[in-house]
Amino acid sequence: MHISILGGSGFLGRKVAARLAADGQLGGRDITALSLFDIVPPTAPAARFPVHCVGGDIAALPDAAIPDGTDVVFHLAAVVSAAAEADYELGRRVNVHGTEAVIDRCRRLATPPRVVFTSSVASFSGGQAAKLADDARQVPANSYGSQKAAAELFLADASRRGFLDAVNLRLPTVVVRPGRPNKAASGFFSGIVREPLLGLATDLPVPPDFVVWIASPRRAVDWLLHAASIATTTMGVDRGINPPGLSVTVASILNALDAVRPGASALVRRVFDPDIEKIVAGWPATFEQLRARSLGFQAHEPLVELVRAFVADDLEATRQERGLA
Amino acid sequence: MHISILGGSGFLGRKVAARLAADGQLGGRDITALSLFDIVPPTAPAARFPVHCVGGDIAALPDAAIPDGTDVVFHLAAVVSAAAEADYELGRRVNVHGTEAVIDRCRRLATPPRVVFTSSVASFSGGQAAKLADDARQVPANSYGSQKAAAELFLADASRRGFLDAVNLRLPTVVVRPGRPNKAASGFFSGIVREPLLGLATDLPVPPDFVVWIASPRRAVDWLLHAASIATTTMGVDRGINPPGLSVTVASILNALDAVRPGASALVRRVFDPDIEKIVAGWPATFEQLRARSLGFQAHEPLVELVRAFVADDLEATRQERGLA
Repeated sequence: MHISILGGSGFLGRKVAARLAADGQLGGRDITALSLFDIVPPTAPAARFPVHCVGGDIAALPDAAIPDGTDVVFHLAAVVSAAAEADYELGRRVNVHGTEAVIDRCRRLATPPRVVFTSSVASFSGGQAAKLADDARQVPANSYGSQKAAAELFLADASRRGFLDAVNLRLPTVVVRPGRPNKAASGFFSGIVREPLLGLATDLPVPPDFVVWIASPRRAVDWLLHAASIATTTMGVDRGINPPGLSVTVASILNALDAVRPGASALVRRVFDPDIEKIVAGWPATFEQLRARSLGFQAHEPLVELVRAFVADDLEATRQERGLA
Repeated sequence: MHISILGGSGFLGRKVAARLAADGQLGGRDITALSLFDIVPPTAPAARFPVHCVGGDIAALPDAAIPDGTDVVFHLAAVVSAAAEADYELGRRVNVHGTEAVIDRCRRLATPPRVVFTSSVASFSGGQAAKLADDARQVPANSYGSQKAAAELFLADASRRGFLDAVNLRLPTVVVRPGRPNKAASGFFSGIVREPLLGLATDLPVPPDFVVWIASPRRAVDWLLHAASIATTTMGVDRGINPPGLSVTVASILNALDAVRPGASALVRRVFDPDIEKIVAGWPATFEQLRARSLGFQAHEPLVELVRAFVADDLEATRQERGLA
């Protein structure tokens, strides 16, 4: 089978590519080729199958990003929350028109491919007290969330029309993100674990009792691969999935950090930031996850394992990437 | 105040223009100018204020369609349900990219205008048994509904950002539409009243106990004008309104027809059409309307008045337009 990853240079894109290269198969079928697409051509992982790396603008998607014969597209390309808020046109171009370009390309393939799309918890509002049902209305309170919710609508409609076969995974805030801080308003949820483990001080812009809906990179990758293989026949016109994340307080994240590296949370400074708080406080903190469970999406591991997985998978690479001793 | 109507040649656009021309004011403020925009320049109603008629493509919206100083935009331009289903690109271009062009134009005005947008019951699904709450999720089962729901998301986000100040009115199926049959899958709901009143036979493609959520043109125009004047401060990020339509069976529409013109329903032939039934059967038949009531949207008049209003307002003009004796 031939797989494409759009957003192949992003941290989830790289993890999915590395996993596919290591596994050599997806859903029981051998992988015969992998295409990686991003603004600049992504770096190919070592693999037993050919890996094609393509660079370009997703809103003017080159055919080579999704070659003829593609079976599965992971559409992870996005302008993230704070960046989409800062540059309205850029967010619309990548998050909306980019998705339209993906639909148009898939439509021209001989067989409609599975498209696994990363939507987001940011497409919901409701805030700290909300526990959202699987059929909760998406009322976004930021441009990124609006664009993701609209892209979901277009992908669901394209599925109904038979252009492609989409699963829209509304990922929780992914913690711990490796590498450098990014432009997502939610970046600090990773920063409060990653930076202390690097020996660096970092700011916490919300109170310790703030509740957040998160998922580990390992679990997010598992869900993405699972979404590529499930039968969509029972999903009907609604292609959205709220996967089974973890609803945790910031304090419990810091406790898990200290359990893995005693005293590390002392490097976390409480510096309230009303602009960041305003964005993240709108996102709901808990979801029901009944649909995801019934479709076989794996439950989340405990917080301490999430911190240990970052140490095992990403800490050394992050240290090297950032030139830290 | 200066008002623009996009889709000024459509039947609701013409009714809104005629009403504004007759009233001379909106929400207690005198109208100083009216701009009408459509693919071909609309016809100006007689009015005490200047009326500018502009033709063009809404996805490449000319500035003259929404001139500097515009206070209120009625965005009624759309490719309707069956047409958007038949031509995917055309629906997307007008219903989605057209709305993006409206947002981009409004953003360049000195003062953010009120934008009254006609969304649709077709953006929901659930079918005959569904009674939808005000916060019901929009899960469209047709491209038109998907495009309308996405346009709502963009207009709500643009409101949050301060580019404009939108009210998204999800109109029920409007009955009785004057003139000729159009490409909407729901056209027959009007046809079964209009055609017999013209002395013409017509087809009913669904069973008599089929339940439909409708509004009269008079009530739809009232709601549009009301939406132009309400305070949006209490609406928050959710700019959608399900107005208080009528939930009625086809049989009760035919009874109202016979009450106004005894025996007229004999001209309605039962000719089941599974393609049309498949589209309209997905639309929910009842809504809760609590939000609309709290915002002062007027309750609907009884069915018999709806039929009488068509006879009073539109029957003669329809007869002339169609060259009937």
